[in-house]
Amino acid sequence: MRAYIILVGTELLSGMMIDTNSIYIAEELNKIGITIIGKSVVSDDIDEIIDLLKYVYNKSDIVIFSGGLGPTIDDVTRDAISKFLNIKNEIDGFHYDKMIEKFKLRNIKIFEKNKKEVMVPTGSEVFYNEPGIAPGFYINKIAAFPGVPIELKNLFPKFLSFLKEKYSLNKEVYIKDILFWGIAESILENEILDIIKNYENEIIFEFLVKDYGIIFRMQTEKHKIDLVNEIKNKIDNKLSGYIIGEDNERIETNVINKLIKQNKRISLGESCTGGLIASKLVSVSGASKVFTEGIVVYSNEAKHERLNVKKETIKKYGAVSKETVYEMLKGLKTEIGIAVSGIAGPNGGTKEKPVGTVYIGIKKDDIYNIKKHHFNGNREKIRERASLTALFELLKLL
Amino acid sequence: MRAYIILVGTELLSGMMIDTNSIYIAEELNKIGITIIGKSVVSDDIDEIIDLLKYVYNKSDIVIFSGGLGPTIDDVTRDAISKFLNIKNEIDGFHYDKMIEKFKLRNIKIFEKNKKEVMVPTGSEVFYNEPGIAPGFYINKIAAFPGVPIELKNLFPKFLSFLKEKYSLNKEVYIKDILFWGIAESILENEILDIIKNYENEIIFEFLVKDYGIIFRMQTEKHKIDLVNEIKNKIDNKLSGYIIGEDNERIETNVINKLIKQNKRISLGESCTGGLIASKLVSVSGASKVFTEGIVVYSNEAKHERLNVKKETIKKYGAVSKETVYEMLKGLKTEIGIAVSGIAGPNGGTKEKPVGTVYIGIKKDDIYNIKKHHFNGNREKIRERASLTALFELLKLL
Repeated sequence: MRAYIILVGTELLSGMMIDTNSIYIAEELNKIGITIIGKSVVSDDIDEIIDLLKYVYNKSDIVIFSGGLGPTIDDVTRDAISKFLNIKNEIDGFHYDKMIEKFKLRNIKIFEKNKKEVMVPTGSEVFYNEPGIAPGFYINKIAAFPGVPIELKNLFPKFLSFLKEKYSLNKEVYIKDILFWGIAESILENEILDIIKNYENEIIFEFLVKDYGIIFRMQTEKHKIDLVNEIKNKIDNKLSGYIIGEDNERIETNVINKLIKQNKRISLGESCTGGLIASKLVSVSGASKVFTEGIVVYSNEAKHERLNVKKETIKKYGAVSKETVYEMLKGLKTEIGIAVSGIAGPNGGTKEKPVGTVYIGIKKDDIYNIKKHHFNGNREKIRERASLTALFELLKLL
Repeated sequence: MRAYIILVGTELLSGMMIDTNSIYIAEELNKIGITIIGKSVVSDDIDEIIDLLKYVYNKSDIVIFSGGLGPTIDDVTRDAISKFLNIKNEIDGFHYDKMIEKFKLRNIKIFEKNKKEVMVPTGSEVFYNEPGIAPGFYINKIAAFPGVPIELKNLFPKFLSFLKEKYSLNKEVYIKDILFWGIAESILENEILDIIKNYENEIIFEFLVKDYGIIFRMQTEKHKIDLVNEIKNKIDNKLSGYIIGEDNERIETNVINKLIKQNKRISLGESCTGGLIASKLVSVSGASKVFTEGIVVYSNEAKHERLNVKKETIKKYGAVSKETVYEMLKGLKTEIGIAVSGIAGPNGGTKEKPVGTVYIGIKKDDIYNIKKHHFNGNREKIRERASLTALFELLKLL
């Protein structure tokens, strides 16, 4: 089944409001195997809504509205729907009685315009809005719900039960995400396309580029879970060196969990990343079991005083150098250590060491591994990439 | 001018991703007086995109795309646009050269399909994508940008300058943002509503709740700048204690600038915030002038060894206590110091010190100021709020 989501509200267009309703609706529909083919935000304008309905109605098995069911003149969703379907509105007796009850409890007078709120297109299937006034309704492939999140979330499960029964839906969707780092998107895709080419009728595949890595997503019905595992094994065999997590895991979750398992403590010496790596590790609940300290040695003075980096080393090779990073690593006291020094920009670059040059060092017991990297992007991106790459270099050694 | 925003990406429809791009785009367009008449999310399907373009093209003065410009088979935005406009694509020479440069630096091979990324509809106005590969482009009322937020944000300002010149926009729009912290939204609103009630026909007012504070925005025509300043002065008089920045400033910009002006160095001792404060300070270019070091003393051992917190103090009062934070502050070597220790959760809370309890200490020369705070939210939110509050407490003393 194919669904289209329409959010009604001029306030959603000004860019000031993050829409969480459509995410909720999409997630719930996905779970019962309904595909979202599109979603739109439209202003409180009856002609615009009807226009949009004309555009989406035939390409969808169901159109779901959120917003515009209140009592004010701005609330035109139900009128747009009934006009589009050429049906008159009627008062829903049950909700009308409930409204009288609720207003009485709150000691509020009912105005004529409040009656509008309990109207629905004649013949609608009606869903009870416990926390609010306006009912949800469904008629001729179109469903409408209030935009107030608490009311939507009260109504939507009732609508889902109705849908499941009406269309005998009982597909259970299975999603598997694999998270990659350290490999270019185009190369990753080539490698994976090779593996999945025989499964394309069975499973939906997607690549999502995130700040924290590239996600390869497989989506299918629950009974095809074996196929997903088969692909996952092939990917593991071919690309395990670039896999940094599964599903909701991030690289830092994985690093912390491995350290806990191996009972090894970690500490950090950060310069240009300036606490970002520490912050990522601390974001994992339970990090305190293995993370002892992170030193942001932003000044040369601090590098010397906190990590015993020799003044001559910095003078001779510079703060951004293999030699300095080596001594930073040596200054760390735990079995596992990460040290980073680089030029995040926008200033400070030279011809030999342009902005984006970052030395990343990993210490594991007595093994020291220091590499020179180059990252693109602005200050923020260079720091983010350096942090993730440092964790990635460590993960490879764990 | 009327703009329509189109986000391309099947992943945006599955409900797993919160779209922040369209919010950014809408805000930026609003600032130069462009109205958003609608926004839609469409899957990576060339026919669907063309279909949507047919629906929105005539009702809009400009259509803005985000997403679908990468190198993979899923990336069909540029092809949809050129097919809709009946124009061929061509390689943009500048971006092609830049791609070769960037791939060389990262030691990655260029595949045939990577060329796709640097193609644009022939005759497009092209905008340079510094942190990424695919250029932004504009042709015949249609503009397209990558969906990666950092790339969009690098490109969009360039496009706005182009738009402003092309359509002589922004001759008149003036926006003043004032950023607040440490005051509840409802209280802030009450205080400000009182001030602005006589200006409501002249100026558009808005409150925007962000992670980094509450923005009060005034938008008007440029010749009414005196009115804006008048209100700003009234707000300064009444609420200066809660103002942490103006326009694009963040609290960390403000802190670093004040420290530079006062020629005072800062260092940090962070426990539960785990490098977040350091990371914020380092995000300000030029921070190295005043930021010497940040110590993430996550373990008690590190608190003792790095900052000379006495073992007995931790034993007697706990790591999350006024006494420990006082000794952490004392262990910092610069004129200005921040020390933070708290319980970010989800575990580790007790009846006396529930999750969210955070001690924040500020040292300024010989003055020590330590307060107990309680923050709501999950681990991430508690750490974020504690970091901002620490900077806020410092700012008040500078």
